[in-house]
Amino acid sequence: MSQKPHFGLTGLAVMGQNLARNVAHNGFPIAVHNRTASKVDEFIADFGTEGTFVGAHSLKELVDALEAPRTILIMVKAGGPVDAVIDELVPLLSPGDTLIDGGNSLYTDTQRRNKDLTAKGLNFLGVGVSGGEEGALNGPSIMPGGQREAYDRVAPIFEAISAKVDGTPCVAYIGADGAGHYVKMVHNGIEYADMQLIAEAYDLLKNVCGLSNNELAKTFGEWNEGDLDSFLIEITTQIFQTKDTLTEGHLVDFVLDKAAQKGTGKWTSQNALDLGIPVTGITEAVFARCLSALKDERVAASTQLPGPVDVAFEGDKVAFVNDIRDALYCSKIVAYAQGIQLMDAAAAEFGWSLNRGEIATIWRGGCIIRARFLNRIKDAYDNNPELANLMLDPYFRDGLAARQAAWRRVVGEAVKLGVPVPAFASSLAYYDGYRRASLPANLIQAQRDLFGAHTYERTDREGTFHSSWGA
Amino acid sequence: MSQKPHFGLTGLAVMGQNLARNVAHNGFPIAVHNRTASKVDEFIADFGTEGTFVGAHSLKELVDALEAPRTILIMVKAGGPVDAVIDELVPLLSPGDTLIDGGNSLYTDTQRRNKDLTAKGLNFLGVGVSGGEEGALNGPSIMPGGQREAYDRVAPIFEAISAKVDGTPCVAYIGADGAGHYVKMVHNGIEYADMQLIAEAYDLLKNVCGLSNNELAKTFGEWNEGDLDSFLIEITTQIFQTKDTLTEGHLVDFVLDKAAQKGTGKWTSQNALDLGIPVTGITEAVFARCLSALKDERVAASTQLPGPVDVAFEGDKVAFVNDIRDALYCSKIVAYAQGIQLMDAAAAEFGWSLNRGEIATIWRGGCIIRARFLNRIKDAYDNNPELANLMLDPYFRDGLAARQAAWRRVVGEAVKLGVPVPAFASSLAYYDGYRRASLPANLIQAQRDLFGAHTYERTDREGTFHSSWGA
Repeated sequence: MSQKPHFGLTGLAVMGQNLARNVAHNGFPIAVHNRTASKVDEFIADFGTEGTFVGAHSLKELVDALEAPRTILIMVKAGGPVDAVIDELVPLLSPGDTLIDGGNSLYTDTQRRNKDLTAKGLNFLGVGVSGGEEGALNGPSIMPGGQREAYDRVAPIFEAISAKVDGTPCVAYIGADGAGHYVKMVHNGIEYADMQLIAEAYDLLKNVCGLSNNELAKTFGEWNEGDLDSFLIEITTQIFQTKDTLTEGHLVDFVLDKAAQKGTGKWTSQNALDLGIPVTGITEAVFARCLSALKDERVAASTQLPGPVDVAFEGDKVAFVNDIRDALYCSKIVAYAQGIQLMDAAAAEFGWSLNRGEIATIWRGGCIIRARFLNRIKDAYDNNPELANLMLDPYFRDGLAARQAAWRRVVGEAVKLGVPVPAFASSLAYYDGYRRASLPANLIQAQRDLFGAHTYERTDREGTFHSSWGA
Repeated sequence: MSQKPHFGLTGLAVMGQNLARNVAHNGFPIAVHNRTASKVDEFIADFGTEGTFVGAHSLKELVDALEAPRTILIMVKAGGPVDAVIDELVPLLSPGDTLIDGGNSLYTDTQRRNKDLTAKGLNFLGVGVSGGEEGALNGPSIMPGGQREAYDRVAPIFEAISAKVDGTPCVAYIGADGAGHYVKMVHNGIEYADMQLIAEAYDLLKNVCGLSNNELAKTFGEWNEGDLDSFLIEITTQIFQTKDTLTEGHLVDFVLDKAAQKGTGKWTSQNALDLGIPVTGITEAVFARCLSALKDERVAASTQLPGPVDVAFEGDKVAFVNDIRDALYCSKIVAYAQGIQLMDAAAAEFGWSLNRGEIATIWRGGCIIRARFLNRIKDAYDNNPELANLMLDPYFRDGLAARQAAWRRVVGEAVKLGVPVPAFASSLAYYDGYRRASLPANLIQAQRDLFGAHTYERTDREGTFHSSWGA
């Protein structure tokens, strides 16, 4: 080889393999390493003809195979394994080299690692990568955080391997230290909400409107032609079309209704609680997965806790299908509005200047929440960079106004019929709460002052007050 | 003095003062200390005749004033100040002495301190104290965790100073290390839910039923005679009776609707997310306070985001008042059910054997969530110590069944009229979700398998499966 590559990757599980191949497909030579060294040889044997790979059987070989300034992408399990690889790499590196963590790391870990490595003269990028295995190979959405100059050096590679929408790469520098992983975390939180909302729509379409799997596929297929056009709606269509290979039925009917989770949704909610931002849709979605996991308890309770009696859906089922579509759209806007509010609060807390329009842009392709309406979100922040809440953008405000009656009908019917719609209902409560100049929290402050002398403010004058409340 | 006391207290802010006086009132001599030493002299001057106090102007004087084995109750701000006092006390103590933290400390801090002090031959109790200033003086609810034998030594004092209900002290040993502070945290979480539910009821009573403050006082007064009989309903009545001293109106109308919080509700939700327990009511209550705090945003949004048009309440307002009462009762059961589920999970996680009936017993008096129906909760766990969920106890199950139609009417009307009821709605969604043998989470698992190869289980056979989903 005429020249050593600048770019290397360690961790050849599926995501690492696919990213390495994607890099090579785009004409960049890449050195690859895996802890189990035989996997390196297998990888080269399987994919070596796809581009210029240099196999390395130890981290020392990997570092030696690279031209300085080196950039090494770490694709190992989040948590301890990332620290272990970093600790082993650091003594082998030279000042100015860059390590990249491409896993779903908690942003506080990324902040800590960035600080530690900066003190050693090294760069550290925490990079959120969304799109699953398929995206990793053919074009993911990439959210990089860390030293700007280190990012600029690898930007040509990231821009080449990322998804493109209208020719624009789905990658952009997000901000310092943990900003990339933070934004990826919120992306995943929104993904939790979106998936739960689709599940609630499915529940109502199936159990209230009586749609079969074929009708569900048709309905979601139609929805994917309109404002809801998105990857998740598209794959939902595909899921309802899929026949089971072990039985005669549709596969979805044989999937156990216990939803698992890997933590990023939970982190989003926990951080929202810390920052005091009401991220209710995502949180209800996380808790809905928790409730789904209590399958045995639910089966036992189902014969003991009664539902509503003598009620039935009395409306027009075809019209109600459209109402459900509108409720899904409105609730989805709320999920994005809340997630973006959270990013705004994090930017203030951690000193990042997050470009909301640009983040919407890089979510348009490659990632799990890619959707047509992200163009509208980008437009909203292009039109008004100071927008306080996505719901206040004229396009979304009018969209909510036009659909709110349907949204209310859906939640109202679900409540009447006993179908749980925690995310639809919570999103609507947020809409109704956010547009209230006065909430009943005055009573809460009065209670706190009465029993705990916590004091209160007044509506009609400045200052902090305490009262004996007639005691 | 013939004999030195065994019991001392440091930290003479209001809670510390009142607890010290309560101890002295019950005939126990007590040594008292405060960092600002003049406060000790003031305290003795003000209250010295109420019992046997020994003033100490330094922590060394405090320790010297006590007979071994010594017990010192620390009443300082949670967090760093507790560690600072402990660090200063430890070198002065003898093996077998006991330190008690009586503040609202995070249970993980208590676990850490217990471990550190145990290694030094000392005992450490983390003790939740509820009841505010008034309770501290006249009888709080006390939740002690830590070494059993250390608790037994101070049990006579705690039993004497605690509230009594039907002659039973509102204190009982909870469990090892952080168990007491954990249970106090959940108590506070339930308190958040209860307060938010009352606020939602207030909102509907005022803005849908048109009740005046006098009518609100009358209504809550009546509710306090029935199943809702509780401290929080009692003080709510009192709040609506309170006239403003600065204007002509009722004070509650001049209290700013920005609810503050001190963190225990947030901790409850964050831990519920970690343990995977759907504690939705408490979490919606915490987020409702967060939303209330965004006053400026809400005022701005109120003129931009439209509510429902051409809708009005068309039912019987008197009947609806009773519906609201029933919705409050049902949602409150859910808040307790979720809080207790969380304690069950924590007991399993941390190796505590929490006695749920006993915890209900000590919450019956002294604390903020004291309520008549805690007798019923105690009965529920006495009748069935293995009860999986409070809602399944026959008394509560039947209570929910009898009131669910009202609960649904209230949420349905609120949704229709545009009144946010996040905690009512979320609690109802939990009820409807918990009693569902099958939830639509099968779709979520299918989506996760399709885009992330996360695999799924099946309803009809054992094993873990992955499918290409027609791709």
